[in-house]
Amino acid sequence: MFANLRGVDSHGVIRLKIYTDRLRASGFKPKARPRIVAEQESSALLDARHGVGQVAASAAMKLAIRKARQSGVAVVSVKNSNHFGASAFYAMQALEHGMIGFAATNAGPTMAPAGGREGRLGNNAMAVAVPAGRFSPIVLDMATGAVAWGKIFVAQQEKKRIPTSWALDKDGVPTDDPNAAAHQGLIQPFGGYKGYGLSLLIDILTGVLSGGGFSTHVRTLYKQVETPSQVAHTCAALRIDAFMAMAEFQQRMEAIIQLMHSCPTAPGVARIFVPGEIEHETEQQRRLEGIPINAELQDELRNLGAELRVKPPF
Amino acid sequence: MFANLRGVDSHGVIRLKIYTDRLRASGFKPKARPRIVAEQESSALLDARHGVGQVAASAAMKLAIRKARQSGVAVVSVKNSNHFGASAFYAMQALEHGMIGFAATNAGPTMAPAGGREGRLGNNAMAVAVPAGRFSPIVLDMATGAVAWGKIFVAQQEKKRIPTSWALDKDGVPTDDPNAAAHQGLIQPFGGYKGYGLSLLIDILTGVLSGGGFSTHVRTLYKQVETPSQVAHTCAALRIDAFMAMAEFQQRMEAIIQLMHSCPTAPGVARIFVPGEIEHETEQQRRLEGIPINAELQDELRNLGAELRVKPPF
Repeated sequence: MFANLRGVDSHGVIRLKIYTDRLRASGFKPKARPRIVAEQESSALLDARHGVGQVAASAAMKLAIRKARQSGVAVVSVKNSNHFGASAFYAMQALEHGMIGFAATNAGPTMAPAGGREGRLGNNAMAVAVPAGRFSPIVLDMATGAVAWGKIFVAQQEKKRIPTSWALDKDGVPTDDPNAAAHQGLIQPFGGYKGYGLSLLIDILTGVLSGGGFSTHVRTLYKQVETPSQVAHTCAALRIDAFMAMAEFQQRMEAIIQLMHSCPTAPGVARIFVPGEIEHETEQQRRLEGIPINAELQDELRNLGAELRVKPPF
Repeated sequence: MFANLRGVDSHGVIRLKIYTDRLRASGFKPKARPRIVAEQESSALLDARHGVGQVAASAAMKLAIRKARQSGVAVVSVKNSNHFGASAFYAMQALEHGMIGFAATNAGPTMAPAGGREGRLGNNAMAVAVPAGRFSPIVLDMATGAVAWGKIFVAQQEKKRIPTSWALDKDGVPTDDPNAAAHQGLIQPFGGYKGYGLSLLIDILTGVLSGGGFSTHVRTLYKQVETPSQVAHTCAALRIDAFMAMAEFQQRMEAIIQLMHSCPTAPGVARIFVPGEIEHETEQQRRLEGIPINAELQDELRNLGAELRVKPPF
């Protein structure tokens, strides 16, 4: 709901069916509780024991916030987890505590290193959330692929072509066919070798550092649903008043946002946005008007509801 | 020398003259020592008092390493600093301590927010260094612009055209003229709005969080040399053995690097690199063969040497 409200439909209820499939096939262990396996004053390592990614990452963020309250800043890494949805959800948990939040995750290998033609890295993602006074918080939530993987599924469901900068087919050739991209191909990193570098860095800070899966060891959400996917996350929190009074920080955030908003625009551009602003405005609108869901997805959710004896809200 | 050895000529001795000009004009305060103004167990804020950026950032990294040794991870931010050269230099200081190092800096406004046509953000940069066992360390050192600003100066000195994806002229139009870019124009962010988001994020984590200059408050290195430039940095260190034994981490790093190296290549690609690998190999080569410096820069350094009574080593 968080993702759909914010317009990030690729990470919303479109994932309900596969999450359910994985729970039923034991790819997600429904009763697993994360356990602390290493701990210092401002760091910790959790073993999610193949439980639900959302449960593990929420526990990690909660622990990071608790530790940052004591020491100023904290990092908590999680191994043996699963797909956790939208990174922004965890980063934003720090906001109400007067902190900057960070969350990153790796994912199954759908991206080649720069110059390669086989999946060696996930469309690894990170989010940072920063309180911003009277403005909505700055929330930078970005995958390191040229596009969030789920957008290709949206295009598939809506039977639309995709830009050729998004994906490669199985031969390593750019494609505009979402089916070729989804079933055989690879995502392209955003911004060339820098996007590749960031994706590798996220895999190191999540998979390698946590002792969990990385690179080809991580399974994508949609394949081998009975097998744990070895996803790893890392969450962090930074207490703003360890650096300055919160009121002063909020004023400074308002000032930098105003400097962006007031920038003269290039021809044809109506307005300058800061990260998270479009999602925030979409949320305001969707809370009033509802969330549009296409017919195919409505059918899928209705069938899933019937199977599980849950009445869909539409 | 660090930058030139690694082939990052845009951040090497090409900057000696402007650093000297700023020292002589008191834009850099040569005797200023950084002072701690806020401190928690795993965080600190330094006031560089308008001293040399390299001095302040080295002090910040040293403090972050000391704090991370105690608590697992630490973040140190620096205000009232100046241009600090290559970010990798500070991030890499963590390596010999068995830590992952991070360094970021903001810079004078040479980049517009996505959709804008005036400088509101610097070509803000960050580096992360990770020990990698028998391989050279992973060092991701990236500016958020499509190109490091200094490369435009190299092109100016070498009288070469630049790719049109690098910069905008003063009207916001892409240009291949390094003079138009250097004197009037703007850098383009890499990867479109994601690069813009990362640049803004770095400005928040350095300039806003430190209480220092951000956005248009930061002065570029080359203008108003008598005025402190209000640059801010943030350094961080993470102790690897807070998560797992160093030997295990090194093995895991070797494994992920091998997975990148062994990826089948796209047509025409001879070899897959990981971040920092090309720079490491350039360093090995330049330590044997010397650093190539073009005639114009040699003249500049010779004149500077004569003025300061320092004999150039060539």
